[in-house]
Amino acid sequence: MPNPTAAMLVIGDEILSGRTQDTNTNHLAVKLTAAGIDLREVRVVGDEASEIIAAVNALRARFVYVFTSGGIGPTHDDITADSIAEAFGVGISVRADARAILATNYKNPDQELNEARLRMARIPDGADLIDNPVSKAPGFRLENVHVMAGVPTVFHAMVESVLPTLAGGEPLLSITVRIEVPEGEIAARLGELAKITPSLSFGSYPFIQNGIFGSNIVVRGTDLDRLQKARKELEVLAKSLKA
Amino acid sequence: MPNPTAAMLVIGDEILSGRTQDTNTNHLAVKLTAAGIDLREVRVVGDEASEIIAAVNALRARFVYVFTSGGIGPTHDDITADSIAEAFGVGISVRADARAILATNYKNPDQELNEARLRMARIPDGADLIDNPVSKAPGFRLENVHVMAGVPTVFHAMVESVLPTLAGGEPLLSITVRIEVPEGEIAARLGELAKITPSLSFGSYPFIQNGIFGSNIVVRGTDLDRLQKARKELEVLAKSLKA
Repeated sequence: MPNPTAAMLVIGDEILSGRTQDTNTNHLAVKLTAAGIDLREVRVVGDEASEIIAAVNALRARFVYVFTSGGIGPTHDDITADSIAEAFGVGISVRADARAILATNYKNPDQELNEARLRMARIPDGADLIDNPVSKAPGFRLENVHVMAGVPTVFHAMVESVLPTLAGGEPLLSITVRIEVPEGEIAARLGELAKITPSLSFGSYPFIQNGIFGSNIVVRGTDLDRLQKARKELEVLAKSLKA
Repeated sequence: MPNPTAAMLVIGDEILSGRTQDTNTNHLAVKLTAAGIDLREVRVVGDEASEIIAAVNALRARFVYVFTSGGIGPTHDDITADSIAEAFGVGISVRADARAILATNYKNPDQELNEARLRMARIPDGADLIDNPVSKAPGFRLENVHVMAGVPTVFHAMVESVLPTLAGGEPLLSITVRIEVPEGEIAARLGELAKITPSLSFGSYPFIQNGIFGSNIVVRGTDLDRLQKARKELEVLAKSLKA
């Protein structure tokens, strides 16, 4: 059975303006690969409701799991929760359980849990909360869409909360062999290996390091024995090219 | 007149598996922002023709400029050029000018310019070449789509080749004020500022650092005077909260 599929939607003007380097996608990608879930597509859109709605509706129809990052804080530009509710055509309001969790953050919740902060307790109807051990304000899951925070420490914690709830597949394993000749020298042989071993995927990732043109050959698959066989063949190839 | 819009398409299984952290998007975002071009959407797809074709056709119809990264090397998994040709419904073949540029890389081009390397001279009909001063193999532009390499040093060089050919708008400027109270404390005032200053965009980017919950307030716009006025108001606000 093929592994379940997934997509990531990163929300935030700061990524598109270049102010912030997104690292949440890479974090999620590593975790999903280890869990046997195939991340198939990533999109980044700005803080604009129509863009968020269109992207989440496109992705949730095509993939088993969708994960979002960003836009669930207390400020006027945090419009992810409202956009998700609109995408699903459901209502959204301050929910008692989310409000109670938020309140544990404050000595004086009646005063400190102001209108802005209460925005973080607005949860679309029918959603389950996602635990946030870092700063309390919860994420939520609505059907196959997991809505999480953009701050990396909080995003990471929410991913840990979500992972045990996902049905994974066979973990995708990989081996890497570094070859210090330009990839043009090994491309033909690599293509042959890929053709005769359809259960493995062969990738070539060229690098330029201290003036050396080389390539990391990455082989991915779920069968460890076949991967180790491929590693040996590639190491023989690498040696023959050096000599 | 609003600034021209742009989208980025990152192509490569290695990004989706988590093996590689994409940094090309951030590099391009910084350059486009400085040139007055608004990056509006980013997508990442794997090395699969149908995915590349669907994404490039969706993006080139919606945005003034499209930039792609990855999949134009000599190996069997480098299918970007063929996919772009298919997306546009045009032919693709080894082109004399691209072949001549590639040949300058080799002492013995008749021997070293093997079949795999010649893949890098396959250019869709009607495209212009994009100069690659790092490793010669050119990128190309077909209508509004700029096809560039995935290796960051080569991608950066190609971006420099492309930038002078783009019509930009007014550079988007930004100022940042660091506020060391949780963003829930400033959200209301920030929302008001955003409402009464529609020509500027106010973003709040929370952080957690050494146990301090704070926020970087980033204000963006094209009018330097208004930005400086906003900075003063935010600094007054920050002081009043600290006291």
